[in-house]
Amino acid sequence: LSSLKLTQPFIIQEELKNIYLFFTHLFIYFALGSRYVSKTATKTVSEFEYDAPSMKTAVPGPKSQELLRQLGEIQNVGAIHFFCNYEESRGNYLVDVDGNRMLDVYTQISSIPIGYNHPALIKVMTNPNNVSAFVNRPALGILPPENFPEKLFESLLSIAPSGMNRVQTMACGSCSNENAFKSMFIWYRNKERGYASPSEQEVGTCMINQSPGCPDLSILSFMGAFHGRTMGCLATTHSKAIHKLDIPSFDWPIAPFPKLQYPLEEFVRENAQEEARCLEEVEDLIVKWRQKGKPVAGIVIEPIQAEGGDNHASPDFFIKLRNIARKHGCAFHVDEVQTGGGTTGKFWAHEHWGLDDPADIVSFSKKLLTGGYYHRDELQPDKPYRIFNTWMGDPSKNLFLSEVLNVIRRENLLEEVTRSGKALLQGLYSLQTQYPHILSRARGQGTFCAIDACSDATRDSIMLKARNKGLFMGSCGEKTIRFRPALVFKEYHVHQLLNILNDILAEHK
Amino acid sequence: LSSLKLTQPFIIQEELKNIYLFFTHLFIYFALGSRYVSKTATKTVSEFEYDAPSMKTAVPGPKSQELLRQLGEIQNVGAIHFFCNYEESRGNYLVDVDGNRMLDVYTQISSIPIGYNHPALIKVMTNPNNVSAFVNRPALGILPPENFPEKLFESLLSIAPSGMNRVQTMACGSCSNENAFKSMFIWYRNKERGYASPSEQEVGTCMINQSPGCPDLSILSFMGAFHGRTMGCLATTHSKAIHKLDIPSFDWPIAPFPKLQYPLEEFVRENAQEEARCLEEVEDLIVKWRQKGKPVAGIVIEPIQAEGGDNHASPDFFIKLRNIARKHGCAFHVDEVQTGGGTTGKFWAHEHWGLDDPADIVSFSKKLLTGGYYHRDELQPDKPYRIFNTWMGDPSKNLFLSEVLNVIRRENLLEEVTRSGKALLQGLYSLQTQYPHILSRARGQGTFCAIDACSDATRDSIMLKARNKGLFMGSCGEKTIRFRPALVFKEYHVHQLLNILNDILAEHK
Repeated sequence: LSSLKLTQPFIIQEELKNIYLFFTHLFIYFALGSRYVSKTATKTVSEFEYDAPSMKTAVPGPKSQELLRQLGEIQNVGAIHFFCNYEESRGNYLVDVDGNRMLDVYTQISSIPIGYNHPALIKVMTNPNNVSAFVNRPALGILPPENFPEKLFESLLSIAPSGMNRVQTMACGSCSNENAFKSMFIWYRNKERGYASPSEQEVGTCMINQSPGCPDLSILSFMGAFHGRTMGCLATTHSKAIHKLDIPSFDWPIAPFPKLQYPLEEFVRENAQEEARCLEEVEDLIVKWRQKGKPVAGIVIEPIQAEGGDNHASPDFFIKLRNIARKHGCAFHVDEVQTGGGTTGKFWAHEHWGLDDPADIVSFSKKLLTGGYYHRDELQPDKPYRIFNTWMGDPSKNLFLSEVLNVIRRENLLEEVTRSGKALLQGLYSLQTQYPHILSRARGQGTFCAIDACSDATRDSIMLKARNKGLFMGSCGEKTIRFRPALVFKEYHVHQLLNILNDILAEHK
Repeated sequence: LSSLKLTQPFIIQEELKNIYLFFTHLFIYFALGSRYVSKTATKTVSEFEYDAPSMKTAVPGPKSQELLRQLGEIQNVGAIHFFCNYEESRGNYLVDVDGNRMLDVYTQISSIPIGYNHPALIKVMTNPNNVSAFVNRPALGILPPENFPEKLFESLLSIAPSGMNRVQTMACGSCSNENAFKSMFIWYRNKERGYASPSEQEVGTCMINQSPGCPDLSILSFMGAFHGRTMGCLATTHSKAIHKLDIPSFDWPIAPFPKLQYPLEEFVRENAQEEARCLEEVEDLIVKWRQKGKPVAGIVIEPIQAEGGDNHASPDFFIKLRNIARKHGCAFHVDEVQTGGGTTGKFWAHEHWGLDDPADIVSFSKKLLTGGYYHRDELQPDKPYRIFNTWMGDPSKNLFLSEVLNVIRRENLLEEVTRSGKALLQGLYSLQTQYPHILSRARGQGTFCAIDACSDATRDSIMLKARNKGLFMGSCGEKTIRFRPALVFKEYHVHQLLNILNDILAEHK
């Protein structure tokens, strides 16, 4: 017990006892009544977090390697790092099948909001009122459950970005962006035809993929962007060739994303020039594509380009971009799939911009646990079944999200993120000052931080060494390390991270 | 209790007692330890099914109407039938918020495999060994849980169609088909370039959506097909204009799907001619699109066109189509999103064809609870991250699927489906004989049955009347009623359905 540290003090003693009794009973029930025998019953509700990484083998260890071999018989396993013991993982610490315990600052590609096995989420699972939401997944678009509006109000709508009264849930980030694009196309064509009914020719041609029914409209995206991998999203994704090679695409305009110098506050003039250059190009492209007969129905952008290398731009850039969209009659879609959910210190990264004229669409997924998008009234499709699919999200994810929001509020996690983020960025500045031949361009907002290595090989080598010392990080862009800890990442964990990195850098070369 | 009928005899008395004790304890725990008070605890595990529909109001009733108003403030609610009380729904009976209990033969757009609140699924939920799979959703492509290979083997691979050793899970049907298409494009281009590395030009051009990196390849689909609504899938969907209008698309070839006469066995010669005509057109299109510089990388087809109107074709048609794909070097993709999971009496509808040369890809979702696709070895992408996204499915759905498969085997549900399906189709034949001015073209395989009304208005009127009498059905095509009951739909339920339909038809006009 001496190696455990109390980080979540919100469960009172009495409740703990009840949880213990409950799981004991569960254990007895299943031991008697079924083939399952609980080995981890009392552990999964532990509100204790480990106090440090603990490594037993190199990673991947022998058990992971054996499982890799097994899975390799049915899937390409080239992207798999190791196999996990999620039962034993807690808070910021991910435990693998070989018993290695790592400080996890990648959190399942930035999709775990409040750490592993949070007791509040386990409670959602074990509340009998919620059982039905898990075992009877509804077709939300035709037969929603009684509490669906209530759950949307108490979860997604309680954190809606300003100007957004409407929300549509979806199963994942790509589906969210695909349907957001469709909403923009429908909205744009309705404007063009003056909200009249579509012509017979439109109705006829759309059935065979031809214009005018399937019009030559486009979405403007940015070099380095990542908006997903289904074919509509992929046409706006330009981060890495491996995602796009061999897949047919659309001839849509692609603007340069500003390549800024960091720290931003030291290069204000240079960066403003670079941003002005990109904005000019955006307007040129909109005009050019209109002339080509492929008008831009919408502009899509991430507040911070993540997969593309953690590229930032200033609030001024985004405000001007929004104005350009307005001026040219294009919808403005902010993709917050990776930036949303509190990791920048605000619930939505674009809230840092101070937009007077809100975005038209804000999409989300990952830390929100459900995919989906908010939109302005005008972007709502005019008819049913235009934005539709079988499941339209998953109410069981909304239940978890409600509870995540409760935890964020109760524990002031956004303030916590701001505090930890400052410590992390300061630490990265120190490291790059100390090791200027290895590290550069430290940058970040909240705990959404990154730093560049001098080469991709050096970056990869640092990451592997860190993993073997119990620090699991992600990469992005060409030679960038990205930090994507959960919202329960405290200053205590920051120092742990910096110490491990420092040890590796001191030994490096 | 007299209104309840035992339909699931598999829970023994001792287990029942344990379940009761367990939920009593849950009740006590939550009543004491949290703000939740269980009102439905002992009910949700009931293995009793209702014995008949029971209607209290017209549908939608007043409570549904009030909820529609609330939800209408945040979403387009034009497709919503009514709001549901899933806690009170059991087996084949869906209960709405106004206390109406309906025999459900649409089952959430064909996505509920073994009825509502099946005790076996509730047990999955309440097994503490499974808690972690629900609260810690992993990024399966990089950090799978320890039991992931084992769960794939015991669930999806245990029911793999012949010739399929590999499976990739995905979150929904559209994502499954999008990624299946991508696999076919990657496979096709790798063949074309002789499995050499891509050229610098390919790597460069793909980043800006241009060929040769993003090649002009196509997927051949059929008129009336439905393969999903994301932009790649939507280019192969041709069922209804409302799905496609205003969305940009690809210039891909679309072949006619045979328009057969029913019952199939009475029109063998005419139907064979019609199928030959369509197959000839398929070959012409493949040649034509190759000449246009947009070669067909794959052919995608449903075993029974569902959303497009429940259109059947003969095993001979599909076998010949598979041979055409082979002859022209196109991949052959069978979309079993709606037909898969046992509803035709075999686990996969295409198992009725007796293919010697298996399909290259078989996609699924809905009743399988997880999306995904099986594929032959050759269709596996050559490198990691080519078929990838954050979640790559959801292990908690795999847990439910394993249990669904156990129930299907234990209760011989495929035989049950065959038996009920015969009774249903016979009943529909009788009805169309009795009411030839209203009904025609009864058809089906297993319980995957359909019948046409004389007009869309008549079809809609019959469906609304049936709903108010406690029978909830789905529609498809222009004037078709489609039956998509769960696998626990017994002959007893068939007669209930036929009686209600008969009453309505007797009163009609």
